[in-house]
Formats: sequence, structure tokens, C-alpha cells
Amino acid sequence: MREIFNQELEQVGTDLHRMSLLVIDAIENASTALQTADLQLAENVIRADEQIDEIERSLDEQCISLLARQAPVATDLRVVIAALRMSATIERMGDLARHIALVARGRYPEVAPAPSMREVFTEMGAAATKVAHQVSRLLETRDLELAAGVERDDDTLDALHKHTFTILLDPAVEMTRQQMVDGVLLGRYFERFGDHGVSVARRTSYLVTGDLSNSVAPLPERS
Amino acid sequence: MREIFNQELEQVGTDLHRMSLLVIDAIENASTALQTADLQLAENVIRADEQIDEIERSLDEQCISLLARQAPVATDLRVVIAALRMSATIERMGDLARHIALVARGRYPEVAPAPSMREVFTEMGAAATKVAHQVSRLLETRDLELAAGVERDDDTLDALHKHTFTILLDPAVEMTRQQMVDGVLLGRYFERFGDHGVSVARRTSYLVTGDLSNSVAPLPERS
Repeated sequence: MREIFNQELEQVGTDLHRMSLLVIDAIENASTALQTADLQLAENVIRADEQIDEIERSLDEQCISLLARQAPVATDLRVVIAALRMSATIERMGDLARHIALVARGRYPEVAPAPSMREVFTEMGAAATKVAHQVSRLLETRDLELAAGVERDDDTLDALHKHTFTILLDPAVEMTRQQMVDGVLLGRYFERFGDHGVSVARRTSYLVTGDLSNSVAPLPERS
Repeated sequence: MREIFNQELEQVGTDLHRMSLLVIDAIENASTALQTADLQLAENVIRADEQIDEIERSLDEQCISLLARQAPVATDLRVVIAALRMSATIERMGDLARHIALVARGRYPEVAPAPSMREVFTEMGAAATKVAHQVSRLLETRDLELAAGVERDDDTLDALHKHTFTILLDPAVEMTRQQMVDGVLLGRYFERFGDHGVSVARRTSYLVTGDLSNSVAPLPERS
């Protein structure tokens, strides 16, 4: 019984990691597509999101089946519940990457961000990609250094997000109304991506350290 | 055993409903505060969100404890998992109402939306409030007519959200940059509020009808 549980839990872990690898590609490619107006790359991100959704559905069923057949308690139960939640969160990270790709596709053949915002979105893309890489490694290694790294990069994303508003509200910076609208949405997508990364990092930390305070509570969203 | 399970499940249902009542107040008051620049009302929404978060934490613990002690299977298991997810979703609806209140507070003593956007946000506020009312009644009565109503009001929110972009992108409509930024964010908050309402409605429908297709799958977000 215990051995089967462990095997099945390992499969859940493998699938979560597989999702996270797809999310790395998604956010990296979405960020590149945004800066280069690469329609093909944007389409790839949009299409690839279906795969992420599919793994989530399969993970849900695996977790529910595990709960039904093995009736885990204590830590084992919390691990399964955490996996269920992490899969929803990682799926959402994929959605946000797809949203960024949709903006890139929507403005093609133009580059979506206003010239004055390209740098901040390049930096947000880099920080978000770093978040995704660290989340993925964290799921694989449980190395809590990586969880701290995710928190730091999320702070970077928050600071960059604030900076987008400084640019957007500066009357000296010229941009079209479409560029303003896109600038607000893109900033929000990248910022939320970071928040979700932190959520996964905190849940993983909790599973490693057993410290409940950061994991079961909803992640307070920075406003 | 069975009786205890049913009693505890009833408590979970009561708490979910209690959360949904707080969310009705939150979205209704946030929408009013937005239109009337009512600082006090906005502050109330922001403060009241803590209560919602607290019920979510308590619900999480109740559900996990239920799973550990009762090891439910089949439908019972799915009901507990659905409750766990609905509590996270309803908590998120509270967050979005708080975000709207934060915009209202941030622009005080001005009315945040540009004059040309006040009507669309009044309508979005009314539709979102209707979603919250129906979600709450649905949790209480399991009347699937209400689930269909939530879907319809979410369609209304999506249409109104599209309309915000028509106004925002119209060069003939004068607004400040701050009003543009706020207009984009507010539209997104209301639209996401509706999406989460649909998510709760679908999960409840599933619990009533047993039709899995709409409930376990992640809600595809309209873009």
C-alpha cells in the first residue's frame, strides 16, 4: 500500500514538473514573441497551452483517485492537497503566458509595447522566466534556496510593475491608446505570473519544512 | 460516522455561503464606492476582505480535517474537494472587489472612472453584483436555474468588458492617462469576478448533476 502510494505520488511529482517545463517555454517564448512581433512563436505559445491544461486535468484525476484509494492522512494528505493546488496554479501561469502571446499576436506585424516600454517588458519577461525556471527546479530538487530566489524575482517583478505605471502616467512619454491599454494589461499579466510562482514556492517550502503559516493561507496579493 | 460526516459537510456549506454573503457586500459596496468616490465605503470593503480570507483558512482546515478523519470516497470525496476549490475561488472574488475599492480609494476625492466610462462600470458593477447574489443563492438552494443565470451575467460582463476597450481606444473620447490606466484595470477586475462566479456555478452544477465535464476542468478564461 505504502509503496503504491509512493509510486503514485512520484508520478504526480513528475507531472507537476512536466507542467512547469512547459510553462518555462511558454513564458520565455511569449516574452520573446512580444519583443520581436514573432507571430509563429506567439501561435506556438497559444497552442501549447492546451497541453498544460491537459496535464492539469490528468493530475486532478490522479490526486482524487489517490485520495479515494489510499485515504492518506497527516503529511501524506497535505502533500496530495498541495499538489492539487499547485497544478491549478501552474496551469494559471500557463494561461498568463498565453495572454501575453495573445497581445503579441493581436498587434502583429507591429511590436505591441510602445518603444518607451520595451525595456521594462524585456526585464519583466526575464524576471518571469527566471521565476518559472526556479519553480521548476524547486519542484525537482526541493532546494529551498530556489524558493527564496522566486520570492526575490517576484519582488523584482513588483518593482518593474510599479515602474510601468510611472511610464504610462508620464505625460512626456508618447504612446498610442492601444499601447497604453496593452501596457497596463501586460504589466498585470507578468505581475500575476510572479505571484503564482511565489504561491508554488511557498507550498513547496511548507511541504519541506512543515511550516504551515505560508502555505495553506491564501497568498496575499500585492496591490 | 456518516452522521458526523454530514454534519461537518453542512458546516462547510454554511461557511461557503457565509463567505458568499460577504462577497455580495464587497462587490456591491466597491461598485458604489467607485461611482460615488465614497472613501468610507471603499475602506470598509478593503477591511472586510480580511474576514473573507479568514473564513477561507478555516474552511481549508475543516476540509483537510474531514478528509483525514473520514476518508470519504466517490461523491463525498468530490464534494469536499469541490468545497476546497470553491472557497479559494470565492476568496478570489473578494480580492477582486477589494482591488476595485483600492482604485476608488486611490483616486479619492475624485471619482475614478472617466465620465465617459461611468455608465459601463455602473453596468459592470450591477452585473457583477448579480453574479454574486446568484452564486450565493445557488450555494444555498442548489437550484440550477441560478447557475444558468450566472453564465448569462458573465456573458454580459464579457460584452461590457469588450465595450470598455471601444471607449478606451476611441480617440474622440477624452480622458486622462490615469483614467485610462484605471479603466483598463477596472474592466479586468470586473471581468475576472464574473469568470470566478462561473467557476463556482459549474462546480455546483457538477455536484448536483454529476456531470464532470464542466467542473474538474479548469475554467477556460475568455480573452
